[in-house]
Amino acid sequence: MSGAKANNSISGDRGAAAAEMLNLLEELSCYTRKDAGAEAGVTRVLYSPEWAEAQRFLMKRMEAFGLCTYADSVGNIYGRLEGVHAGPVVLSGSHIDTVMNGGKYDGAYGVAAAVTALHYLKQTYGPPLRSLEAVSFAEEEGSRFPLTFWGSGNVTGLYNEEMASQYKDQEGITLKEAMLGHNLGEQKGLAFRQDVAAYVELHIEQGMVLEQSGTQIGVVEAITGQRRASVTIKGRANHAGTTPMGMRKDALAAAAEMVLAIEAAALKQGDPLVATVGKLEVMPNTSNVIPGEVCFSLDIRHPGEDVLKAFCMDLERIFAEISATRGVLVELKHSLQAASSRMDPGLCRELSTICSRRGLTWRRMVSGAGHDAQLFAPSSKAAMIFVPSREGISHAPEEFTSPEELVAGLEVLIELLYKLGYEEEAEEAGV
Amino acid sequence: MSGAKANNSISGDRGAAAAEMLNLLEELSCYTRKDAGAEAGVTRVLYSPEWAEAQRFLMKRMEAFGLCTYADSVGNIYGRLEGVHAGPVVLSGSHIDTVMNGGKYDGAYGVAAAVTALHYLKQTYGPPLRSLEAVSFAEEEGSRFPLTFWGSGNVTGLYNEEMASQYKDQEGITLKEAMLGHNLGEQKGLAFRQDVAAYVELHIEQGMVLEQSGTQIGVVEAITGQRRASVTIKGRANHAGTTPMGMRKDALAAAAEMVLAIEAAALKQGDPLVATVGKLEVMPNTSNVIPGEVCFSLDIRHPGEDVLKAFCMDLERIFAEISATRGVLVELKHSLQAASSRMDPGLCRELSTICSRRGLTWRRMVSGAGHDAQLFAPSSKAAMIFVPSREGISHAPEEFTSPEELVAGLEVLIELLYKLGYEEEAEEAGV
Repeated sequence: MSGAKANNSISGDRGAAAAEMLNLLEELSCYTRKDAGAEAGVTRVLYSPEWAEAQRFLMKRMEAFGLCTYADSVGNIYGRLEGVHAGPVVLSGSHIDTVMNGGKYDGAYGVAAAVTALHYLKQTYGPPLRSLEAVSFAEEEGSRFPLTFWGSGNVTGLYNEEMASQYKDQEGITLKEAMLGHNLGEQKGLAFRQDVAAYVELHIEQGMVLEQSGTQIGVVEAITGQRRASVTIKGRANHAGTTPMGMRKDALAAAAEMVLAIEAAALKQGDPLVATVGKLEVMPNTSNVIPGEVCFSLDIRHPGEDVLKAFCMDLERIFAEISATRGVLVELKHSLQAASSRMDPGLCRELSTICSRRGLTWRRMVSGAGHDAQLFAPSSKAAMIFVPSREGISHAPEEFTSPEELVAGLEVLIELLYKLGYEEEAEEAGV
Repeated sequence: MSGAKANNSISGDRGAAAAEMLNLLEELSCYTRKDAGAEAGVTRVLYSPEWAEAQRFLMKRMEAFGLCTYADSVGNIYGRLEGVHAGPVVLSGSHIDTVMNGGKYDGAYGVAAAVTALHYLKQTYGPPLRSLEAVSFAEEEGSRFPLTFWGSGNVTGLYNEEMASQYKDQEGITLKEAMLGHNLGEQKGLAFRQDVAAYVELHIEQGMVLEQSGTQIGVVEAITGQRRASVTIKGRANHAGTTPMGMRKDALAAAAEMVLAIEAAALKQGDPLVATVGKLEVMPNTSNVIPGEVCFSLDIRHPGEDVLKAFCMDLERIFAEISATRGVLVELKHSLQAASSRMDPGLCRELSTICSRRGLTWRRMVSGAGHDAQLFAPSSKAAMIFVPSREGISHAPEEFTSPEELVAGLEVLIELLYKLGYEEEAEEAGV
C-alpha cells in the first residue's frame, strides 16, 4: 500500500532532495530584470517577462518531477501529486514575485521547497493517500500594483478576476491588461477554490529572532494583526532666525515627541508588539524655516486585536496631549486594519513534534510580516515554518539564509507533508 | 545756511511724505512675475524682467524727487542728494529682490522709505551738509542664484563682478549672463565703494517680538551670528513587522531624540538663541521599513560668538551620547559659520533718543535674520530700524505691516538721516 509509515525520520535520498532544492532556488534567482547587475538582487514583479519565464520554468520542472501541472486564470501555477483517495487537497508553496531589488529567498524558497518535497515524497513513497499540490502564487508583495496577495487572494476569495480592471501600475497599465498579456499556456478556469484542506508555507523569517536566539526553526502560531495610519501635524511655519523659541509652533518638534512616545509605548507593551514610523515628510522642508507641517506614517502590529485596539487608543490620547501642550493641530487617519490570523494549533503541535524528533531547535513565534498563509487561515488548516534570516535583512539583495538552515526547513516541510498526505490518522482526523 | 537745526521734531509736510512712501511701496509691489494671481504675493528675483522694470521705475521716481541717479555694474541703483561739504556719504536703503511668492514689505519698505526720506529732507531743508544717498540693492535673498547679498556684497567687497561667472541658476544661466542681460542705462563703474560713512536700513522685523510686546520700533543692536550644519544618522533599515523593538537601530527615533534635545537646549539657553531643524529627510522613507538613515539640517543663531561655540559643542556631546545609547552612527558637517555683526552703539543711542522724543515705544533687539546692514558693519557705522510684522509672517504673501507702523518707521529714519546729514556735530564727530 501507499502511505508507508515513517516513525522517526523520513527515508529516501534526503541529500539529493536538499541539493535539488538549493539548485532550484539558484535557478529561480536567474529570472530577474536584466537591466541591473547581480548586486542589484532579484526583481521579478507580477506579469513581467521575467516573472512569466520563471513560472514557465517552474511548470517544466514540476513536470520533470512527475507532477501534474496547471495554471489558473490569474497565473498561479500548481504541480499536483494525485492522491489514492478523492477529496480535499493539501497545498504547499509561496509566491514567485519579488519587491524591486529584492532577495532570492523571500517567496521563492517556499516554492522551491514545496516542489522538491513533492518530488521527494513521490520518489520515496509513491502516490499519497490524499492529493498534495505545490503552488507558486502569482503575487504577494504589492510591488507593481497597489494591492497585495493577488495570487492567494484570488484562490481564497478575497479578490476575483473581475477586480483586475480597477488597479493600475505606475505606467497606467491596468492589472487586467497585464494579466491578459502573459502566457502560461492553457489555464484551468477560475482561481477560486474550496478544496484546500490544509496550506503549509515555508518561508524565511525576515527578522532576527531565530538568528539571535540561535534557533533553527520557527513554528508560527499567528500572523500578526496590523494597523496603519497617517498622522498630520499642523504647526506654524516661520522664520528660523526671527522667531524666539517660546513663540514657535514647530510641527517637527511635535512629531519628534510623538515618534519617541510611540517607541516608548511599544517598548512598555513589550514583544510581540511593534510600532514603526517609517515615513516622515516635513513642509516646507527648508533649513531656515520652522516646519509648519509634518506628516508621518504609523505601522502597529500585534497578534491580539484587543492589544492593538488599546495601544492605538493610548497613542491617540498621547498625541492629543502633545498637540494641546504645543498648540499644534493633529489629525490621525486610519488606512488599514488587518486582523491577525491564527495558524492551526494542531499543525503547530505537529511541527514542534517533528522538530524535536529530528533534533532541530525550534520556538513558537508570531510572524510580524504578512504571508499567503493568512489568507488560508479562515477556511483551511494553515501552518507556517520559518528559518533564520541573516541579520534579519529582507527585501534587499543582501537577504541570506545558509544552505544548512534552508535544508533544515525543507526536512520539516517534508515531514509535515508526509504526515498530512500519507498517514491514515491525519485523514481520519480530517486534517 | 543749509542744515537747519531741528531739536524736537522734523517739520515740513510729514503727512505728504507718509502718503508718498505708502504709495511707492504699493507701486513697487506691482512689479512682480505676471503668471500668478495677486494671492501669490510678489516674485521679483534678481535680473528678471520685473526686477529690471522695478529698478528703472525707481530711478525715474528718484529723479522726479530731485535726486541724482546712477546704477553700478551689478545693478544696484542710487539716488543722491549732494551735500554742501565734500566727503563720505550717508547711505540708506535695502534690497529690491524678493523670494518666490514673497511679500511686498521685505526689502522694498526700506528702499521706498529711504527714497521718500531724501525727497522730504530736500524739500524741507534743502541740500544737506553731507551727501545722502538712497540705495536699492540688486539682491539679498538668494532666491535665484546660490548666494546672498550680491548687491551689498559687491559694494562692500565681499564679492566682485568677476565672481559672477561661478554661479548658475536652476536653468543653468550664469549670474554673469543674467547680469549682462539687464539694462539699467549707463552704469557708473564698479560697485565697490569706500566712501560710505554710515549705512541706515529700515526693515520689517520678520518676527513676532515687536508685535507681541506691543512695541512700535525695534532698535537693532546686532545681527545675529549663525551656524549651519547637516547631521546624518545611520541606523539599520529593517522590516517594520519582523524586527522586535529591542533589536532596532531606528535612525528616525535617534533623530527625534536629537530634535527634542536641540529644542530643550535652546530653551534652556534662553533668548536670543534660536535653534531650528527645518529640513529632515528619511531613508528609505517607506511606511513598513524602519528608517535606516536620517539627515537633518541645523540652524543656530546668537549674537555672541562664545555662546554659539559653546552651544554647538554641547549639542555635539548630546548627539554623541544619543548615538552611543542607540548604537547608531552620527556625523555632523558644518556648512556655514557667520559671525554676528554689531550695529554702531552711537547710532543705537541716537535711535533710542529719537523714539523717546517722538513718543514711540521702542526696544533694543537682536535681528535673527541677515540683512544688508551686516555687510556694512565692519567698515561703516551701520544702523537698523525694525517695525512690527503681523504674526511674524514673512517671505509669504501674507506678510503685513500696518500703514501706521510703516509711517512710524519712516519718521525715525527721517530723523536719523537728518541728524547724520544736516547736523554739524554729527559731521564733527566723524559719523
